[in-house]
Amino acid sequence: MEPDSTNKLKREIYNIIFEAETPKGRAFDVALIICILLSIGVIMLESVTPIKEKIGILLLVLEWVFTILFTIEYFLRLWVVRNKKKYAYSFYGIIDLVSVLPMYLSLIFSSASALLIIRSVRLLRIFRVLKLARFVGEGKVLADALKASRYKIIVFLVTVLTVVILAGTLMFMIEGKENGFINIPISVYWAIVTLTTVGYGDISPVTPLGQAVASFIMILGYGIIAIPTGIVSAEIAFFKNKEVTTEVCPHCLKEGHDKDAVFCKYCSSKLN
Amino acid sequence: MEPDSTNKLKREIYNIIFEAETPKGRAFDVALIICILLSIGVIMLESVTPIKEKIGILLLVLEWVFTILFTIEYFLRLWVVRNKKKYAYSFYGIIDLVSVLPMYLSLIFSSASALLIIRSVRLLRIFRVLKLARFVGEGKVLADALKASRYKIIVFLVTVLTVVILAGTLMFMIEGKENGFINIPISVYWAIVTLTTVGYGDISPVTPLGQAVASFIMILGYGIIAIPTGIVSAEIAFFKNKEVTTEVCPHCLKEGHDKDAVFCKYCSSKLN
Amino acid sequence: MEPDSTNKLKREIYNIIFEAETPKGRAFDVALIICILLSIGVIMLESVTPIKEKIGILLLVLEWVFTILFTIEYFLRLWVVRNKKKYAYSFYGIIDLVSVLPMYLSLIFSSASALLIIRSVRLLRIFRVLKLARFVGEGKVLADALKASRYKIIVFLVTVLTVVILAGTLMFMIEGKENGFINIPISVYWAIVTLTTVGYGDISPVTPLGQAVASFIMILGYGIIAIPTGIVSAEIAFFKNKEVTTEVCPHCLKEGHDKDAVFCKYCSSKLN
Amino acid sequence: MEPDSTNKLKREIYNIIFEAETPKGRAFDVALIICILLSIGVIMLESVTPIKEKIGILLLVLEWVFTILFTIEYFLRLWVVRNKKKYAYSFYGIIDLVSVLPMYLSLIFSSASALLIIRSVRLLRIFRVLKLARFVGEGKVLADALKASRYKIIVFLVTVLTVVILAGTLMFMIEGKENGFINIPISVYWAIVTLTTVGYGDISPVTPLGQAVASFIMILGYGIIAIPTGIVSAEIAFFKNKEVTTEVCPHCLKEGHDKDAVFCKYCSSKLN
Repeated sequence: MEPDSTNKLKREIYNIIFEAETPKGRAFDVALIICILLSIGVIMLESVTPIKEKIGILLLVLEWVFTILFTIEYFLRLWVVRNKKKYAYSFYGIIDLVSVLPMYLSLIFSSASALLIIRSVRLLRIFRVLKLARFVGEGKVLADALKASRYKIIVFLVTVLTVVILAGTLMFMIEGKENGFINIPISVYWAIVTLTTVGYGDISPVTPLGQAVASFIMILGYGIIAIPTGIVSAEIAFFKNKEVTTEVCPHCLKEGHDKDAVFCKYCSSKLN
Repeated sequence: MEPDSTNKLKREIYNIIFEAETPKGRAFDVALIICILLSIGVIMLESVTPIKEKIGILLLVLEWVFTILFTIEYFLRLWVVRNKKKYAYSFYGIIDLVSVLPMYLSLIFSSASALLIIRSVRLLRIFRVLKLARFVGEGKVLADALKASRYKIIVFLVTVLTVVILAGTLMFMIEGKENGFINIPISVYWAIVTLTTVGYGDISPVTPLGQAVASFIMILGYGIIAIPTGIVSAEIAFFKNKEVTTEVCPHCLKEGHDKDAVFCKYCSSKLN
Repeated sequence: MEPDSTNKLKREIYNIIFEAETPKGRAFDVALIICILLSIGVIMLESVTPIKEKIGILLLVLEWVFTILFTIEYFLRLWVVRNKKKYAYSFYGIIDLVSVLPMYLSLIFSSASALLIIRSVRLLRIFRVLKLARFVGEGKVLADALKASRYKIIVFLVTVLTVVILAGTLMFMIEGKENGFINIPISVYWAIVTLTTVGYGDISPVTPLGQAVASFIMILGYGIIAIPTGIVSAEIAFFKNKEVTTEVCPHCLKEGHDKDAVFCKYCSSKLN
Repeated sequence: MEPDSTNKLKREIYNIIFEAETPKGRAFDVALIICILLSIGVIMLESVTPIKEKIGILLLVLEWVFTILFTIEYFLRLWVVRNKKKYAYSFYGIIDLVSVLPMYLSLIFSSASALLIIRSVRLLRIFRVLKLARFVGEGKVLADALKASRYKIIVFLVTVLTVVILAGTLMFMIEGKENGFINIPISVYWAIVTLTTVGYGDISPVTPLGQAVASFIMILGYGIIAIPTGIVSAEIAFFKNKEVTTEVCPHCLKEGHDKDAVFCKYCSSKLN
């Protein structure tokens, strides 16, 4: 985002609410995150019946205060930024808007206010406060590792989906309606609960054959849990070991050079 | 599979139903996967009593429609392929047949229709739609990693089997019939539920000694879960690292060039 | 173990029951493992009340048959081996003896027969059947990896022990006797069930503060589970990448040379 | 910590209670750890009502004995060390004090004695007994690995926090008060129980939509559990690999020698 430079006040506000490195910018970001956390706390407390009965009015007032503050902040952001459309359609722009809308909607639909919780996504702004750059780098390694493994993860997910459908139906046929496996969708839900090792115990096999099959599914799940972990470990280790520089070749402008590279591997120009 | 080239129509149909790279082939594959998903949805819904009571006739009709479509598809595949036997005995050939048989069997044995769920295995065809080649590669890395660790996994599974039999019997002797550990097979089932960290809670130790032994088994399981993950991680990392070429620069004789490198990163000579 | 070579019959029996590579030796090992599995099955079935009531006599007879077979096998092993003491005190020698003793003890103490389950440890002989050498190698990598990480694992276990004692006592003080946390040992048991992600649900926090603390413990456990997995993964990867040969230096007799080593790294002698 | 050298007795006591390598120091440390373990056992037993009723007096006496012993030990440590303030404010100094205080406080506040459990932290002294240096090294690798991944872990934790708040609120809106999701904080607690795969089953989804969303959250959690494991594995592997020296053979200039190598494995020259 770039500031709208036509106006000194706009520029000043821009530096406060968009910059994270200046003292004022940092102070603003810290205050903002505290407000977001408090506001999430208020929404949560409002759902607790005994607390709502006691201090419901106070919570409603606080909720309106935070909503109005965030609304002002949203319009300020929209006002000071040069390319208003770009901000409005950006990830944070949409989240900033969606974080205040439910409160206004709650004037019409009374149950809309629980949607306010969506403002917890704004917590991701916390990375801006804690030395931004470093986190962008770390986040990028994680994102790169996940991106590099996306095909392996799809292969894995489709296989898991097939396994849980087959396992769920098999258990439905073995255990039947009288033992809690009342239909195939619920049996598939049971298979997911089991394969992921969550194991609520709301549904569990009762017949000996069902327990034997369930045991097999669990040991299978035990092996399957190793696969995504293995994929992600290997990718993170790979990116860690490579430690690609972010250097750009001065001649062909390509990236991705190793730390020990002296010449560009694409065009043979000397790197800095 | 190769087409039967004696007939132009056969060749045309072959290209549609066996090829994944041509536009028509892709369209066919996408349509097929949608049909499979819908058909799985219908089978699942049929098992839900209130839904079956309401729209049972519709679901039955839909089930027959999908079954007849898949039957036609099966015979078309059999017709257009040159080596009919090879297709009929291939993995997909068998799955394609088994996916329609239960519906015809259900005319004789009323409960056979639940077996239709076996057609969920056909979902694996999804890999053909999403750029086939790439997935074959990724699947191959996973398969290679699993294949390479198969002896380690057998060692691991036999050890786990021995541990759960011993742990189950021990708990049967400690807790006894009055605390839910009614016989050794059920106690072994409990040991598997515990060691895999599923933990339904349908059976759980009640006596202090039983809880102490169970605690020990859990911490053991905690350590054991690390082993298959470690095995698979190491294998995937191993196959991943092999992706760096072993090419040597013809000029400076240094190694460690990336796959996409055109020039040596150390001396700027052209690589082969 | 070496055979007692004074007698041709002894030598022949030795080859059958101790060797795994000859056809007869393999056949014997396969038959033995089938007997062990059947015998474990019989012991398990005997603990199931309705089955015992129906075919209890048959199971008892079978149990005695297997026990007598294993007893004969034990004495044969003792007879044909040269160093009888070495076999009798070896791991398998002790297991072979302990696998038959409980049945004879059951003539005196009626409940001793459940101890027969200890013969499931004999299942580890399965590795002898499936190309022995290969499994010894794979097992050695796992054992080496575990051995190399033993200090890290002790550090880890002591830390976990401290955490569960502190967490259990904290929850005992927060939740108290009325919510199932009836004393500190049971609360520590709950902490282990939670930290290992087993989660039976036989005891679970009820008060808001207890649930908050439990949430913190769970997320901690989530992070802690990463540590043993990380340790073992790194060790297995390390041993995999190194692929140390089992070659011994002909001069200084030391082991642990890398695959590409030409000279001994300890005494500079040429390796074969 | 340095001894106060003005006094021979002080020096002697210092060697016993602060040194771990001398025979007397080792004996003292072993005795101390046994006392700590016994004392923890006494505190635990005291919380078990039937045991307390039977031997409560004995347990109270033992507790006072251990407390007085630890108090004497604390003052001895304070007396023999040169820089008393440094010890008093060190990690172990504070723990040593806090380990005895609750017993004296229990004379005033009767419920304070459960706080004694804090002396379980003293168990970490166990590392001193088992060849100190080695454990410091292993612990350092673990600490380094965790320290190196701290930013990745923060990124991960903030993301998890956002996910559980959103997932909890979503389930609160879907399932509602009648199915156990009585307010948002409890629903967030449920989301944490589910995402960490603990799965008590005290609260579990009942409606079909709730079960579908929960299934999605579980599979998500399944993938998320891979991330911290991957991070820690990669870091430990990284620190482990650094253990290979970067030493170059002075004769053939080849690298990759093991730490314990005396001669070059390629040309048999002596390494430095």
